[in-house]
Amino acid sequence: MERQLARETADPADTLIGTLMATIRRRIASRSLTPGARLPSIRALAAAMQVSKSTVVEAYERLAAEGAIRSRPGSGYFVAAPMAPLSLADIGPRLDREVDPLWISRQSLDAGDTMLKPGCGWLPASWMPQEAMRRGLRTLSRTADATLADYGTPLGLRPLRELMVRRMGGHGIVAAPEQVMLTESGTQAIDLICRYLLDAGDTVLVDDPCYFNFHALLRAHRARVVSVPYRPDGPDIERFAAALEEHRPRLYLTNSGIHNPTGASLSPVTAHRLLKLADQHDLVIVEDDIFADFELTPAPRLAAFDGLERVIAIGSFSKTLSASVRCGYVAARPEWLEGLVDLKIATSFGGSHFAEALVLALLTDGSYRKHLEALRTRLARTLAGTAARLEAVGIVPWLMPQAGMFLWCRLPDGADAGKVARHALAEGIVLAPGNAFSLSQTAHGFMRFNVAQSDDARIYQVLEAALQRV
Amino acid sequence: MERQLARETADPADTLIGTLMATIRRRIASRSLTPGARLPSIRALAAAMQVSKSTVVEAYERLAAEGAIRSRPGSGYFVAAPMAPLSLADIGPRLDREVDPLWISRQSLDAGDTMLKPGCGWLPASWMPQEAMRRGLRTLSRTADATLADYGTPLGLRPLRELMVRRMGGHGIVAAPEQVMLTESGTQAIDLICRYLLDAGDTVLVDDPCYFNFHALLRAHRARVVSVPYRPDGPDIERFAAALEEHRPRLYLTNSGIHNPTGASLSPVTAHRLLKLADQHDLVIVEDDIFADFELTPAPRLAAFDGLERVIAIGSFSKTLSASVRCGYVAARPEWLEGLVDLKIATSFGGSHFAEALVLALLTDGSYRKHLEALRTRLARTLAGTAARLEAVGIVPWLMPQAGMFLWCRLPDGADAGKVARHALAEGIVLAPGNAFSLSQTAHGFMRFNVAQSDDARIYQVLEAALQRV
Repeated sequence: MERQLARETADPADTLIGTLMATIRRRIASRSLTPGARLPSIRALAAAMQVSKSTVVEAYERLAAEGAIRSRPGSGYFVAAPMAPLSLADIGPRLDREVDPLWISRQSLDAGDTMLKPGCGWLPASWMPQEAMRRGLRTLSRTADATLADYGTPLGLRPLRELMVRRMGGHGIVAAPEQVMLTESGTQAIDLICRYLLDAGDTVLVDDPCYFNFHALLRAHRARVVSVPYRPDGPDIERFAAALEEHRPRLYLTNSGIHNPTGASLSPVTAHRLLKLADQHDLVIVEDDIFADFELTPAPRLAAFDGLERVIAIGSFSKTLSASVRCGYVAARPEWLEGLVDLKIATSFGGSHFAEALVLALLTDGSYRKHLEALRTRLARTLAGTAARLEAVGIVPWLMPQAGMFLWCRLPDGADAGKVARHALAEGIVLAPGNAFSLSQTAHGFMRFNVAQSDDARIYQVLEAALQRV
Repeated sequence: MERQLARETADPADTLIGTLMATIRRRIASRSLTPGARLPSIRALAAAMQVSKSTVVEAYERLAAEGAIRSRPGSGYFVAAPMAPLSLADIGPRLDREVDPLWISRQSLDAGDTMLKPGCGWLPASWMPQEAMRRGLRTLSRTADATLADYGTPLGLRPLRELMVRRMGGHGIVAAPEQVMLTESGTQAIDLICRYLLDAGDTVLVDDPCYFNFHALLRAHRARVVSVPYRPDGPDIERFAAALEEHRPRLYLTNSGIHNPTGASLSPVTAHRLLKLADQHDLVIVEDDIFADFELTPAPRLAAFDGLERVIAIGSFSKTLSASVRCGYVAARPEWLEGLVDLKIATSFGGSHFAEALVLALLTDGSYRKHLEALRTRLARTLAGTAARLEAVGIVPWLMPQAGMFLWCRLPDGADAGKVARHALAEGIVLAPGNAFSLSQTAHGFMRFNVAQSDDARIYQVLEAALQRV
């Protein structure tokens, strides 16, 4: 408010009125004054702003004439706008539909079996461990009553938390089971962390490009988002340092192993520099480890170097077990975990007891390791094959990832990914154009391909035709 | 801010400095200025507040001396507080642990099998339809791959949404399947609505008493909460009208059928008056129908009279099917539903496909109606029996509910429910003292009993002993 006020030009009486009006308008627009809210009394506002009462009266009357506020005789002035719910679109800039992160999510989630989805972020159902899942359900159909009927515990099923601790230990992350909370998804885990650590207007740092739902989630939190270019070995560390200096972000959200969408992995030297900078600037890091089980050679984990001091580790099993059964986890320093548990109960009343029991059954079934090995081999083969097929139509990977399901690709010069995506959608193909992943909107020449969803020859025919047209 | 400023006393130079300091301190406390945030420049703030630059410098210097802000040569002043995450406790007044809603939730959710839980809000596992559940799991173990592996659709499983439409139809609520979104719980449904409709500082109206997790949830949204006394036929309508006039709430959160904790039900005449007032004041109502299936004679539904214009209907199956399998729903006007779907995807990426499929299997299993009939009969018998046992130790129901699991009871004169609860906890019994449900903190002489969890004779022995002590 102060800066806005200071920017007005100087013409005594009218300036004061105009300044007041601008301030109030801005507070309505930013919803710090919400529809129906009572405005400060004339006397109070005059005293506060060190102006005369007649100045306030004049400002209020002009705003009422504009329809921005309403006078109710005897009770004062109120914000007049009809109740218009806040939508995500109001929060951030409205992007083109084709590169709107929510639009891509909804298209992918809504796509029927007739659609092809090289743009989606998950494996086909047939790649998932169906037999283990069916076995798990039969096992649970014989389990104790409480598992089937009762709410879960605040932290979640202890044996599954212990298993998470052992898994993290394999990546060098030392945590106690009391530092792990199970959630209904990795996304819920990030959401709870944002609720806990962020205030409206706080700044969050993301990679450019990054997983597009980070943009949608941070928009829902009304966070200011700042991005730093991602390189093949992690974020551009010079730009990262500059962003910390300039924007003083509170959080940094990233994937260290198999970065989404690039498939890159953090190098040890970048990890160390990054943590040093985080220390200097009191930055909290959320390390989303959702692709951990795809890795052939594990990337260094920030949470391992840091010891869960300022790094929060999260993950889920949506990519390797089932996205239908929702279960994620978060590991953090003990005092933060307390607050996260309170928020989880307040906003979802416990986790999904049943999903926790099923994930535990699946992870301890004995077949999970074999499933992963088969999956990695299949993905490695498919990565190479898909890269070759894409290159044949002029689409070239930015890098060849060591593992995972994503290829982040550059389109031929001059091609616009948004236009290609629009064309493909008309042909029944959901793509993921680069700018959905890019806060700076500099990835219009890029596209993310899910190699496990890119087998159909029609995809390449449609891509070729679209590239010739646009 | 204006009112705060206006309240300061008048002593020219020091007052101005003091006023500025108080304003900045308050903005830091309310986190409108967050730790690390840059303060307005001296020039800008002086211009905005119409004070001299030296006044601003003096205010900043004094705040820096206090340690509230930090000067960084060449780049200005910054909020100095070390990163202290926002906790729920910071948001609302800290209640006594014994009547803190989150504390009761956590005690109940964490209680092992050795604890007795007359204070909890759910049925014992043995009362739930275990056989149907086991059957449902066996059925799903033979279902299609996609049901077991894929994310759900944005709105959720269509056959289950159609079933919700038919159920609501039975209560006179007319909705299309496109107006129904499935969620991971009834709590998540309310949470999404709050995210969609509320802004920090907006006012929400609740019943006094009301379900205690409403308090925790609204605290997480930093909403201002105002309560209206609940009567045996709905909220006190005069007080309701006065609260609308005075506080202009944006939302009202309530249960119409079998109100939690009182067991009361809304009368048609109160429902009509309430909706008329809501129209006049542009109030949105969230009607939480979680206890619908316990009712013997259905209470009128606000959503039925209103036609889902300004009423949003929500519900779940945690109380009658399973709290382990998480699935809720929300029905609202179509344009709001769009925004709710976007928020659901942004913050939890789809719903629980598997839970939706399982709930659908259970509701269409053919045994659900019989399960409900048996449950209602058993609860009616248990209600009467528990009331008699409580009266024997001097604890008297406020009203005898027509159905449900709760008895809202008055303790003998002078007894404090918080103290009784503390005493009982030491004896391994989790109770639910009245003030956890009461925003006005006027229910210290009340307690909610779950009759299905109150069979053990030790409960009455401990209550009797506690009442003699406190």
